Amino acid sequence: MAQPAQSVPTARPRVLIIGGGFAGLNAARGVAHLPVDLTLVDRRNHHTFQPLLYQVALAVLSPADIAQPIRSILRNQPNASVLMDEVTGIDTSARAVSCASGATLAYDYLIIATGATHSYFGRDDWAPLAPGLKSVEDATEIRRRVLLAFELAERQMVEHGSHPPLNFVVIGGGPTGVELAGAIADITRLYMRRDFRQIDPSKSRVLLLEGSPRVLAAYPADLSAKAEASLTHLGVEVHTGTRVTNLGPGWVEAKHGDTTTRIEAVVTLWAAGVQASPLGKLLAAPPSPPATPAAAVQLDKRGCVLVDDHLNPPGLPNVFVVGDLAHFEQDGHQVPGVAQPAMQMGTYAAHAIAADLKGKPRPAFRYFDKGDMATIGRMDAVANVVWPFKAHLGGFPAWITWIAVHIFFLIGFRNRFAVLLTWVWTYFTFSRGARLITGDQSLPGWPEKPQPSPPLT
Amino acid sequence: MAQPAQSVPTARPRVLIIGGGFAGLNAARGVAHLPVDLTLVDRRNHHTFQPLLYQVALAVLSPADIAQPIRSILRNQPNASVLMDEVTGIDTSARAVSCASGATLAYDYLIIATGATHSYFGRDDWAPLAPGLKSVEDATEIRRRVLLAFELAERQMVEHGSHPPLNFVVIGGGPTGVELAGAIADITRLYMRRDFRQIDPSKSRVLLLEGSPRVLAAYPADLSAKAEASLTHLGVEVHTGTRVTNLGPGWVEAKHGDTTTRIEAVVTLWAAGVQASPLGKLLAAPPSPPATPAAAVQLDKRGCVLVDDHLNPPGLPNVFVVGDLAHFEQDGHQVPGVAQPAMQMGTYAAHAIAADLKGKPRPAFRYFDKGDMATIGRMDAVANVVWPFKAHLGGFPAWITWIAVHIFFLIGFRNRFAVLLTWVWTYFTFSRGARLITGDQSLPGWPEKPQPSPPLT
Repeated sequence: MAQPAQSVPTARPRVLIIGGGFAGLNAARGVAHLPVDLTLVDRRNHHTFQPLLYQVALAVLSPADIAQPIRSILRNQPNASVLMDEVTGIDTSARAVSCASGATLAYDYLIIATGATHSYFGRDDWAPLAPGLKSVEDATEIRRRVLLAFELAERQMVEHGSHPPLNFVVIGGGPTGVELAGAIADITRLYMRRDFRQIDPSKSRVLLLEGSPRVLAAYPADLSAKAEASLTHLGVEVHTGTRVTNLGPGWVEAKHGDTTTRIEAVVTLWAAGVQASPLGKLLAAPPSPPATPAAAVQLDKRGCVLVDDHLNPPGLPNVFVVGDLAHFEQDGHQVPGVAQPAMQMGTYAAHAIAADLKGKPRPAFRYFDKGDMATIGRMDAVANVVWPFKAHLGGFPAWITWIAVHIFFLIGFRNRFAVLLTWVWTYFTFSRGARLITGDQSLPGWPEKPQPSPPLT
Repeated sequence: MAQPAQSVPTARPRVLIIGGGFAGLNAARGVAHLPVDLTLVDRRNHHTFQPLLYQVALAVLSPADIAQPIRSILRNQPNASVLMDEVTGIDTSARAVSCASGATLAYDYLIIATGATHSYFGRDDWAPLAPGLKSVEDATEIRRRVLLAFELAERQMVEHGSHPPLNFVVIGGGPTGVELAGAIADITRLYMRRDFRQIDPSKSRVLLLEGSPRVLAAYPADLSAKAEASLTHLGVEVHTGTRVTNLGPGWVEAKHGDTTTRIEAVVTLWAAGVQASPLGKLLAAPPSPPATPAAAVQLDKRGCVLVDDHLNPPGLPNVFVVGDLAHFEQDGHQVPGVAQPAMQMGTYAAHAIAADLKGKPRPAFRYFDKGDMATIGRMDAVANVVWPFKAHLGGFPAWITWIAVHIFFLIGFRNRFAVLLTWVWTYFTFSRGARLITGDQSLPGWPEKPQPSPPLT
């Protein structure tokens, strides 16, 4: 039976977590030994290890290597249940959320951890033309497009002796853009070089367009320079200070200074903008006005919820907003929307609930920054290490650090081992990975054949 | 440049293979060291190891574990090129095929190996309601439906305290139907038992409907009986002599003797009918009548091409039809449409071409039957071993044989090792495998919620 929203609270407080990403899962694990009843709601059945999603997009790993059913992760946590559903309303005065299926879930504590998604800066019509990378579906769609471009080019060579230029355009020079561009350069230059007879995949171009003056703008300047040098070495054409002004099927229009250029693009990928999940808006503007007026929930311009140093929106001490959806400032800087703070915020929310249950005051949240890193192709990376020592690493040492950290955080032993095995095998054999094209076989903007082939006689 | 169909034959004969399944790949490898130019055309970019497809459908293995890009398989074969395209016409008098892209491919030898697909016996409207299992896309669609049924049931329990009966209906008791039914019983009873809080997946029902008097009708009767006993032991309800007369969203209507029963079904799977690929028809009825009339190409009732003991249709000695598309009779029996004869036929076609090039007579094709096997759930199988000794195996010994043979035939070392590792891990830990739901979140026929949930107050 559904628990009616008005039911008398049971002896065990009900903790409701929305979202099964890093923040939500760490919150769930944090309350494992507390006397609470936990429900975790996610519209997907699986947790996605987002830092490795680009390796699925570029056909090195399989989706199941980096994604895992949330209910399997929590199967041995007796106080946890998992529900696949989409939250469509939050009523903080009634302490209940409503779901797309019609279900109503009451809570004593609510932890909102629904993260962020792509932002096309108001040009949602660009989405089908330039997919971004947030979900397993996004990754397999990018994989499909990149692999298909080579197949269509080979086919057109057989038919017409020519093919459109194989330009891969990545928009946005943050960590995702850098990793995607580096990985495309890698697979085209190393892994696919012997696969085709008519075309030479290593002659394809990879263009990385970044609006600001340097890639990895959130990193120290010397690491940005290292990253750009590594990308250039791989053959990626890095265009900083270049803003995309328009795009369409098969082309991107970009502006550098006063010059506007139109670039042909067989595949365009979007790694430029991020906006908060719509749950922030639901919290800020509930469908029905609350019976008990609370201080207004405020959003920043990307839709993130402003939270205090207990990660609560003002006046809602039993609602935590954690992970990429939270706008939390520390020492005058906003904590970035990446995995590490998300994990720490999730754990913090669980600790705060534990403190409440023991009648102790909640500590304030502080983000403990261990550093950041991004890979660039096959055996190269940059790492801004803050803890346990301070260092700016580049090249192979950074790459080994990256491997170690990412293997360590992969959830589940089999995944760790399978991923490591796949990497070792792929890196040392230039092997194929998971280069499957599934789904339909068209690319937006792929040119019609220049002239019809003569009919069979 | 495209090779015009009329071009003067080069010194090296052009071998064109249509289809990259077992038959096509074995033919391609068979001509590796011959002085020929090989082109292999397939509408997919990957070879699918079909005997393990049901393990993808039931979320044990990932698609990339059992599928591999055809061009990677042939990358080290210098005389081979691969084209992803769909053949739409065959002109045996002009010795050319035409493709969906508009390309025309001339040949001196043509090897048609496009296999078979599902047959809904004229009821193609059943296809979206009861998916079959031939491709990676089919497998992920079945996976999506089976996993989603449990998620929707759990969700409906939270909302309404009830859910529709979790009946999984498998139509067809051949090897695929037996393997699917056994595997569903397995994952629901063993692997998912601790994942849900509201529903008990082990209380779901698995029904296997077979029109003929026994399952695995092509096997010796004692192995059919063993298989049925094993299925029953796993909890599968085996209904032989039961024909499906109709089906719709959420239900199947079946007739046993004079009794017609309507069965509620949250997921219906189709493993009943097989029909040849449409390429047989293209060969039998070319778009334009051939300039040189040849003996008519004949098809059997499933659309398979009747071939002589050189695997040629009558009057076409340079056209080989191999694999499931071939209707070849030996000792008064039709050779079955399974992997083993397909491999042997592919290899034979290459040998026949080699004999031609050496000016020697072609030997006649003979199918060398080593036996057949099918798994039933987790550690059980039946095997009709013919070579190197004759035996009817069941239970664990048959299962170990099955594992060994299938690992051995998996193409590529990494796959073999990864698959073995995944199996060992999954079997001994009751672990999750690859239980991802991707794509949309609806099931045909899933009932509307019985009553709307009360609105948030």
